[in-house]
Amino acid sequence: MYDTFTTDRLIDLWLTEDIGACDLTAQVMIEPHETGAFQMNAREPIVIAGIDVAARVFLRYDPTLSVEVLVRDGERVEKGTRLLEVSGKARSILTTERTSLNILQRMCGIATETARYVDAISATRARLIDTRKTTPGLRMLEKHAVTCGGGLNHRLGLDNGVMIKDNHIAVCGSIAKAIERARRSTPVLTKIEVECDRLEQVEEALSAGVDVIMFDNMSVPDMAEAVKFVAGRVKLEASGGIRLDTIVAIARTGVDYISTSKTHQSAAAVDIGLDEAV
Amino acid sequence: MYDTFTTDRLIDLWLTEDIGACDLTAQVMIEPHETGAFQMNAREPIVIAGIDVAARVFLRYDPTLSVEVLVRDGERVEKGTRLLEVSGKARSILTTERTSLNILQRMCGIATETARYVDAISATRARLIDTRKTTPGLRMLEKHAVTCGGGLNHRLGLDNGVMIKDNHIAVCGSIAKAIERARRSTPVLTKIEVECDRLEQVEEALSAGVDVIMFDNMSVPDMAEAVKFVAGRVKLEASGGIRLDTIVAIARTGVDYISTSKTHQSAAAVDIGLDEAV
Amino acid sequence: MYDTFTTDRLIDLWLTEDIGACDLTAQVMIEPHETGAFQMNAREPIVIAGIDVAARVFLRYDPTLSVEVLVRDGERVEKGTRLLEVSGKARSILTTERTSLNILQRMCGIATETARYVDAISATRARLIDTRKTTPGLRMLEKHAVTCGGGLNHRLGLDNGVMIKDNHIAVCGSIAKAIERARRSTPVLTKIEVECDRLEQVEEALSAGVDVIMFDNMSVPDMAEAVKFVAGRVKLEASGGIRLDTIVAIARTGVDYISTSKTHQSAAAVDIGLDEAV
Amino acid sequence: MYDTFTTDRLIDLWLTEDIGACDLTAQVMIEPHETGAFQMNAREPIVIAGIDVAARVFLRYDPTLSVEVLVRDGERVEKGTRLLEVSGKARSILTTERTSLNILQRMCGIATETARYVDAISATRARLIDTRKTTPGLRMLEKHAVTCGGGLNHRLGLDNGVMIKDNHIAVCGSIAKAIERARRSTPVLTKIEVECDRLEQVEEALSAGVDVIMFDNMSVPDMAEAVKFVAGRVKLEASGGIRLDTIVAIARTGVDYISTSKTHQSAAAVDIGLDEAV
Amino acid sequence: MYDTFTTDRLIDLWLTEDIGACDLTAQVMIEPHETGAFQMNAREPIVIAGIDVAARVFLRYDPTLSVEVLVRDGERVEKGTRLLEVSGKARSILTTERTSLNILQRMCGIATETARYVDAISATRARLIDTRKTTPGLRMLEKHAVTCGGGLNHRLGLDNGVMIKDNHIAVCGSIAKAIERARRSTPVLTKIEVECDRLEQVEEALSAGVDVIMFDNMSVPDMAEAVKFVAGRVKLEASGGIRLDTIVAIARTGVDYISTSKTHQSAAAVDIGLDEAV
Amino acid sequence: MYDTFTTDRLIDLWLTEDIGACDLTAQVMIEPHETGAFQMNAREPIVIAGIDVAARVFLRYDPTLSVEVLVRDGERVEKGTRLLEVSGKARSILTTERTSLNILQRMCGIATETARYVDAISATRARLIDTRKTTPGLRMLEKHAVTCGGGLNHRLGLDNGVMIKDNHIAVCGSIAKAIERARRSTPVLTKIEVECDRLEQVEEALSAGVDVIMFDNMSVPDMAEAVKFVAGRVKLEASGGIRLDTIVAIARTGVDYISTSKTHQSAAAVDIGLDEAV
Repeated sequence: MYDTFTTDRLIDLWLTEDIGACDLTAQVMIEPHETGAFQMNAREPIVIAGIDVAARVFLRYDPTLSVEVLVRDGERVEKGTRLLEVSGKARSILTTERTSLNILQRMCGIATETARYVDAISATRARLIDTRKTTPGLRMLEKHAVTCGGGLNHRLGLDNGVMIKDNHIAVCGSIAKAIERARRSTPVLTKIEVECDRLEQVEEALSAGVDVIMFDNMSVPDMAEAVKFVAGRVKLEASGGIRLDTIVAIARTGVDYISTSKTHQSAAAVDIGLDEAV
Repeated sequence: MYDTFTTDRLIDLWLTEDIGACDLTAQVMIEPHETGAFQMNAREPIVIAGIDVAARVFLRYDPTLSVEVLVRDGERVEKGTRLLEVSGKARSILTTERTSLNILQRMCGIATETARYVDAISATRARLIDTRKTTPGLRMLEKHAVTCGGGLNHRLGLDNGVMIKDNHIAVCGSIAKAIERARRSTPVLTKIEVECDRLEQVEEALSAGVDVIMFDNMSVPDMAEAVKFVAGRVKLEASGGIRLDTIVAIARTGVDYISTSKTHQSAAAVDIGLDEAV
Repeated sequence: MYDTFTTDRLIDLWLTEDIGACDLTAQVMIEPHETGAFQMNAREPIVIAGIDVAARVFLRYDPTLSVEVLVRDGERVEKGTRLLEVSGKARSILTTERTSLNILQRMCGIATETARYVDAISATRARLIDTRKTTPGLRMLEKHAVTCGGGLNHRLGLDNGVMIKDNHIAVCGSIAKAIERARRSTPVLTKIEVECDRLEQVEEALSAGVDVIMFDNMSVPDMAEAVKFVAGRVKLEASGGIRLDTIVAIARTGVDYISTSKTHQSAAAVDIGLDEAV
Repeated sequence: MYDTFTTDRLIDLWLTEDIGACDLTAQVMIEPHETGAFQMNAREPIVIAGIDVAARVFLRYDPTLSVEVLVRDGERVEKGTRLLEVSGKARSILTTERTSLNILQRMCGIATETARYVDAISATRARLIDTRKTTPGLRMLEKHAVTCGGGLNHRLGLDNGVMIKDNHIAVCGSIAKAIERARRSTPVLTKIEVECDRLEQVEEALSAGVDVIMFDNMSVPDMAEAVKFVAGRVKLEASGGIRLDTIVAIARTGVDYISTSKTHQSAAAVDIGLDEAV
Repeated sequence: MYDTFTTDRLIDLWLTEDIGACDLTAQVMIEPHETGAFQMNAREPIVIAGIDVAARVFLRYDPTLSVEVLVRDGERVEKGTRLLEVSGKARSILTTERTSLNILQRMCGIATETARYVDAISATRARLIDTRKTTPGLRMLEKHAVTCGGGLNHRLGLDNGVMIKDNHIAVCGSIAKAIERARRSTPVLTKIEVECDRLEQVEEALSAGVDVIMFDNMSVPDMAEAVKFVAGRVKLEASGGIRLDTIVAIARTGVDYISTSKTHQSAAAVDIGLDEAV
Repeated sequence: MYDTFTTDRLIDLWLTEDIGACDLTAQVMIEPHETGAFQMNAREPIVIAGIDVAARVFLRYDPTLSVEVLVRDGERVEKGTRLLEVSGKARSILTTERTSLNILQRMCGIATETARYVDAISATRARLIDTRKTTPGLRMLEKHAVTCGGGLNHRLGLDNGVMIKDNHIAVCGSIAKAIERARRSTPVLTKIEVECDRLEQVEEALSAGVDVIMFDNMSVPDMAEAVKFVAGRVKLEASGGIRLDTIVAIARTGVDYISTSKTHQSAAAVDIGLDEAV
């Protein structure tokens, strides 16, 4: 989920950034009316994310280009799959192709990495969720890529949920008082989450009417016990130290959500190339 | 190298993106006049990049905050090193800390990864250079991070050098004609580079007066032969298939530059935390 | 709750709109170094909202002005109360005072009107909430004004909660299916609300695990019955036909929230004047 | 009168404000290619203003939508009148309809309120004019709405006329000196107006060659006398304390203009609904 | 007359335009903490315009710089006059000096050229006025420069006065009808001007109540006759074919205004240098 | 060379600047659906530059207009040549024609002036180049106009080449050290230029491996000697005191480039008119 209208404003910035004063090579080497046809191909197996964003980069710069999108976000494709075709003025295509590839390679990289974690816990009821540790300027597109890989978003930004942490609790005097304070002024459709690291805190949060409880770096046995105690009354999130080799045990505790920033902070760009169409 | 003035405009966008309508948690849980003091600490050994950008994020949002920067870009620091201290209105710090950390973690990640490649070829004359495969919206900051890790920038954007490739040569009829065409209209202080994949092309480019020649996916023996042939008359760049286990052999051919996008496209964010000052 | 940083960007637009090419009168009639001191006074009893925004208008245009804020948002003040003092370059004050007054008069108007509704239901457990029917460009400031009058915000924007209506239910086949579909992809900290106009729908929504149910133009007896049936399991919102003479009966049904756009769409600007300080 | 080009930039801001990261409901509940057709209907008798702006909101977000405008600005329509039809991608319509309605309801509200005042004085030669007390960010659209209701604009902004007030006169020494000073540097096509509250001032302003004289809170008999004295030599504006029950007497004094901010500051949004087309 | 607040937004664009990604030379050659002191000197006799804009360029980029302005706009200075001193971080000064000089040289060029025309007609009652033929993006600054040279502005933009021309008259049927139409909907503080090229037109315009009449390319004797006929009842503007060798005869006809775009369209930048302070 | 995409953003600013709140004349005098057809004609012999920019001004404001471009940038045309035809909504054409003409007259003015210098040295090998002394906000368009007149661009902005001057050399200790420092961190495709005013400096720069040497205000005989000494090993630029009556002698010294800002700083706008098509 991302908005196409606001994405177009981002694309404007990206294009301006790369083009600067002008694309010297394209303007010097290519005649204004020369045309070309190119296609993007996956050079490794990937999960698709951002294919429409990649297409919009071309069209935003030059609406006379023809772009055909051949895959859908969320699709898993093999090496060699043709993803997109673009044709029209060669100058326009060459001036924009790097920006289009850069965003697509990054978004697919995140989706592909996310899918690895999602696959690992697919036999459990836990869902993989993301964090706010996204690349500055790419929040919604990276969060969208997480959903393409099968993950779920946690919150979209600071206006999108209340997270009560240790120091807030200290300021307010108790978990109950902190939750009560939040409840009094949080917008109606926004949830409140509290970080707990001990079972007593879970109990207190529960009776204070919190919406979600996050277990911050809690041990697997402690989490399992807390899950049993909560018994489905609120949603539970496990956070901290999530790795592909630890995630299954955590998922088996019965938590609803497992959050990690690895899927966006450590994902490598995938290999996608632009080839001249023949 | 990056410009602080234009970076401030980027910071505005990042803050707007994360804050959205407002920081619900900070406004609900923290009184307007409450103050706090925090420090950023490296949780692993890293190469610093972007420490002043991280500081500006705080100050751009709230110029009344005090920020002290304790390390310099390019510095290699140990796990546990204190990087930056920020104090003042707690609301302002908590609303901005994630954005500050996000950019710093990414930039240090790139610098740290770059340093691995730079270290590998430090006994040769080759210098590691970057590409235009940067994250959309972060071009100059990622290129700056590459220099913090010891690399050199290739070109800053499409207005910053001419790159002649296969299809340009095809259009113009020959390498010589393509270079002549570029020479006629390229700004005086801008260089012209041509991609070659055979020795004959190198010869032709050389006599046509090119400034830099790029060997695209050429074998190590072929590159070595080409280097000998060119004998320092123009700068030479090796590109394609650069990995930590292949780079030394390539560097030993005597090329001037080795380019890779791995250092920015595959670098993981490094671990940096914000802790309350005690 | 509103963010000062993003509000400054709005202020820039407002100032540009009123000033256009330049303030002809101020530049022609007042010498650059002439100074003045002015104060804003309430000319009727009002509830304060936006006093800091009014102050920022002056400072955004000319940071050398001195502004002292004498009341707090949410305060109820009598006719004649001094609200704010501004002094410094006369040109700067005269160029900006109309913009400052315009926003303050509108925000206080909303807060004052909201307080009338809030007072009416103060003996009940119901809370007055707002809608998205705000003036384009002033969303957060108008929502903030509602909270200054004692109201609560419903959702801040389209990214801030899911509202399932009739046509969504028709598309999905049933309330249960619509809620299930929403649950699968809504961010973790975002609530889901469904509009119901019959008791059977309330039952179905309840068992499907919705967070909030909105009674759309339901009769008071029907609402009372529905409230009894729900028995606190989810939050309930009454909507439609809310007026000062109908709101008490609705509040007595036991609903949690009563939503109206009257408080922002029909509130008149209150009377506040700028007088020269003596 | 408003400019469509600059209005489109306002629409962008409004859409961004409401959509934020994305329209969660539309994206979750509605398939990308689902279509729909809706119509806007007046739910009370109103004067139309902003119908083309309402249409542009839809088209600015999604140029593939079809919008048919069925009424014209300035038209008086009955309850139940169909105003506009929009059809195309259901997601696009639902994401934008609230913004489109919000601006239309506000602009029609102002036009409808203005028409009440204009009707009251239609038998006199006086014309109703507006002030700069508009909603920040909506200056031209609110001024346009005033003209749709039959009013005339006073000045569009601070660069659009010179207004000499008490304190300017004090600074310059006399009305004559103030007007002389203004005349020396005001652009050729811009008028100069002076506020008078006594007959002697009117005389002095008249002989100094002012273009318009404003009577500020002058009594009806005094105004009548001043009108007689001026005898059409300059335009005259009555200002202050204008209400529906006082305006006729003021108009009968023979002034050219009667200014009020009531028509924009106190106008309630009118009731317009979006219904699915059948 | 120009607004400093909106000018700062222009300065941002100019700096971004010249700096691009970053000032390579300043960043490579100058240490961050190196300081310097420079002064701007007139290298020919000039009329000053824009000295505060030149100063703001430095301060907008780096508010820690010290700038002292030594002359005032409108002042006539000799060759060798010191205009401005700037000191502080050498990098900041060198990155911005070209932009500061570029605007100052252009604005002083316009003021200096304007003064030549103004001096030529100083013995007459005619005032030199400008047109809308300004450099795109520099409207107010160029119009301000005209006033520094002793000229007066005509209108600031399209929202700042109504100009009725031949084709408007043709559409409306007569000058009288065109003026009546304009009068009905033009804002109260805005004047209406009509272009006439024959005496009969002048008569018709006069009785229709126009504010200003423009003689478009009328012969000197015809203008003199028209001036006599009008006898001060409205303001008169001569336009077309204004040169330094024709302007005096035109001024002597008794017109109020003589308009030319030569002063901004043909003015050469004056010679101003930045020298290191010793 | 300029980028159409970023130029469109400039056009937006220009239009906003001239239109302000709205085009009062066009809206008052012309019915919304009236159409018209106009053509731009050269009123003197000129070199064309910016004809596509002039066309885009119309289309950016109103994409429904038809614009036909009848000449090409770089073409030399006679007085009376028809340059462009525009037809469609009369309001849109009249609102935008001044902006379109303003930029075209300025760009053609620069191209026409440049051509005079270029013609003067056409028998030599020297090429005329420009400087960074362009009008703030019009950098690329003015540089493009220089190329239309037959000139070549020097550098596009501060990120586009390194210029080493006296004070840099002083700071570094010697020309060789300054060049070495630049070489270490300048992007690979960017050249380094050094200003020399004595032959010894030329020698030192040459052996340090500079790319371009600029002779700053050097005498013609000294330049001729330096040219001989350099013997084609690097490019040479003559700068300072370039006038139409001095340029030939300078060109004959054998330098590669002669730089002047006269072609953009002193060029008068050429005479182009918009006439109704018949």
